[in-house]
Amino acid sequence: MTRGDGHNPPTLTEVAAAAGVGRATVARTLGGYGSVSEHTRERVLAAAKRLGYAPNELAKSMTTGRTNTLGVVVADVGNPFFAGILSGLASAAREGGYDILVISTSERLAEEQRAVATLLGKQVDGIVIASAAGRTDAVPHLQDAQRRDCPVVLVDRGLTAIQADTVVTNNRAVTAAAVGSLIERGHRRIGFVWGPVTNQPATDADDIAKVVDGTLWSDGERLLGYVDALEQHGIEFDTGLVSHSLPTEPQATRAVLGMLDLADPPTAVFATEADAMTGTLRALRRRGLSCPEDVSIIGFDDSSWAEVMNPSMTVVAQPMQAMGAAAARAVIARIAGFEGDPAFTTLDSTLIERASVTRR
Amino acid sequence: MTRGDGHNPPTLTEVAAAAGVGRATVARTLGGYGSVSEHTRERVLAAAKRLGYAPNELAKSMTTGRTNTLGVVVADVGNPFFAGILSGLASAAREGGYDILVISTSERLAEEQRAVATLLGKQVDGIVIASAAGRTDAVPHLQDAQRRDCPVVLVDRGLTAIQADTVVTNNRAVTAAAVGSLIERGHRRIGFVWGPVTNQPATDADDIAKVVDGTLWSDGERLLGYVDALEQHGIEFDTGLVSHSLPTEPQATRAVLGMLDLADPPTAVFATEADAMTGTLRALRRRGLSCPEDVSIIGFDDSSWAEVMNPSMTVVAQPMQAMGAAAARAVIARIAGFEGDPAFTTLDSTLIERASVTRR
Repeated sequence: MTRGDGHNPPTLTEVAAAAGVGRATVARTLGGYGSVSEHTRERVLAAAKRLGYAPNELAKSMTTGRTNTLGVVVADVGNPFFAGILSGLASAAREGGYDILVISTSERLAEEQRAVATLLGKQVDGIVIASAAGRTDAVPHLQDAQRRDCPVVLVDRGLTAIQADTVVTNNRAVTAAAVGSLIERGHRRIGFVWGPVTNQPATDADDIAKVVDGTLWSDGERLLGYVDALEQHGIEFDTGLVSHSLPTEPQATRAVLGMLDLADPPTAVFATEADAMTGTLRALRRRGLSCPEDVSIIGFDDSSWAEVMNPSMTVVAQPMQAMGAAAARAVIARIAGFEGDPAFTTLDSTLIERASVTRR
Repeated sequence: MTRGDGHNPPTLTEVAAAAGVGRATVARTLGGYGSVSEHTRERVLAAAKRLGYAPNELAKSMTTGRTNTLGVVVADVGNPFFAGILSGLASAAREGGYDILVISTSERLAEEQRAVATLLGKQVDGIVIASAAGRTDAVPHLQDAQRRDCPVVLVDRGLTAIQADTVVTNNRAVTAAAVGSLIERGHRRIGFVWGPVTNQPATDADDIAKVVDGTLWSDGERLLGYVDALEQHGIEFDTGLVSHSLPTEPQATRAVLGMLDLADPPTAVFATEADAMTGTLRALRRRGLSCPEDVSIIGFDDSSWAEVMNPSMTVVAQPMQAMGAAAARAVIARIAGFEGDPAFTTLDSTLIERASVTRR
């Protein structure tokens, strides 16, 4: 934007006159199609820049078939977890010369289907999506995008119904390690907040698979990691210690209050989301209990808050920025024509041990 | 997306055949131009929906001149404050039939100028922006957008250089009230973290205006509110109690450590951002001081963390979602042709009193 005030936007004709070439040459140069000599190209670009010519990207993309825009579909743009993913995605996209068009779905599959249709209509060059679909659900809207040569990259949540590059964190392994660290400190009654949303919670460990199939990939993996840790240490699965209500902070509070009322209440809680952790702290406060003296807590997702809390909170920290950046780079590579097999990339989360866990 | 698998996307011709009308009629109906009877329109839309026809929005917008897309420029998409604004913006935009195209600028004016040029190139129908420009800075890039009939709405931060609808919160009044509440509890040495970023901090209250002119509108308003409260209670302005370093958590920590080393250190801190508040807590911890026993703290921006912290934090809560929604509605009204004078809308923030403040 180097133009002074008071001018109308310059036309192609004005750029042509300033560069001393024909209109068609300017169109070819700025549109990125046809052949133009390097010398001419430089003159046209210099004239366009001097006059502050903003190429009409729409008209350009009608010609090139590219919009240099990535569509991004996330469950909730206001959630710090997805904000972190978006931040990494936006930086990597910008580096690659792409803008991102974000649509938030509030975890509703119908919204997601509409969002993908909208993005296809807007001719995005590729889509990165944290899908609201369960692990084994059919996803015809994503298959549709792939059939239209719009590459799809899954972020945070895998899906078995399509072949697509996928970028996730090691939810299962890190959960098993975190829950294992509680068990090694003497805890045997460990609450899991929250588990997959379901009307039919798993009644025993053998029953887990069916719950996992129908739920978000990340939620399922965390539950599997919890069960792994119990089995490794010979502790029986107790369905009463796994919440299965809606993923909101008030529901987490209520679920933990219910667990605290059990004859054999938990001495530790593994909270799989930031809101599950704050809900757990609220439940303890309402019962007059302290963390970690009465109940140890491990949370999921780090923040500047977690460390300055009193006690400072032990958490699983996910590499949100790196996850977003990896997903952006994967979709940009596909747009550029990379045809290798779909890659399943697992980034490592880290257990950060602070003061919210004590020996039993 | 009701189509089964294995089909190619339907063409205009197939939709025409299914609806029993001509291709041109389908194009008029789906393109939203020309005249079509209500009866025919319904038949075409039903056929298009049945076949899963995704209209080519690009081709459509070449005809109508509308893209039904809002451009949104924010300083940092990964900041929970802007994530909240985006969440409100996305909901209101969706309600109005608009998608949003988000670009994050990392608080750099050069990035912002590029972002606005990109959005204009993509033919967005309007722009909502939290500008990185100082209050009185020239903003030719935004004037350029207005000249191209692209309405601009300012959110979170006002600018004196252009006439535009503006949606902000009552930063000055709420800061004065919050700092006043500290004074009424006996505090007279009150740190302000962080103040405007500047190489030449204000040396006295008369000097404030020049600092305020060159800084982000919201930062300036908060500093003015702080000075209002001091003046109202006859307390002298002390430049040593106002940080003016870069707005990062480590810088906030360092600024507070410096204040605590003063001969007459602060007994309370007003932190104007979430990161300024966590930085303040870190500084106290490093000196072995407690909140609120040694230093009272009021933070800015509420979160689920603030309430469950120990002590629970007294904060100023901004209506982020409402701010985003109001900005979206304002720009949509302008796109629809509303021509009233630019409106300056001030939404009220709320001081939420919890346990991080004590009487001196």
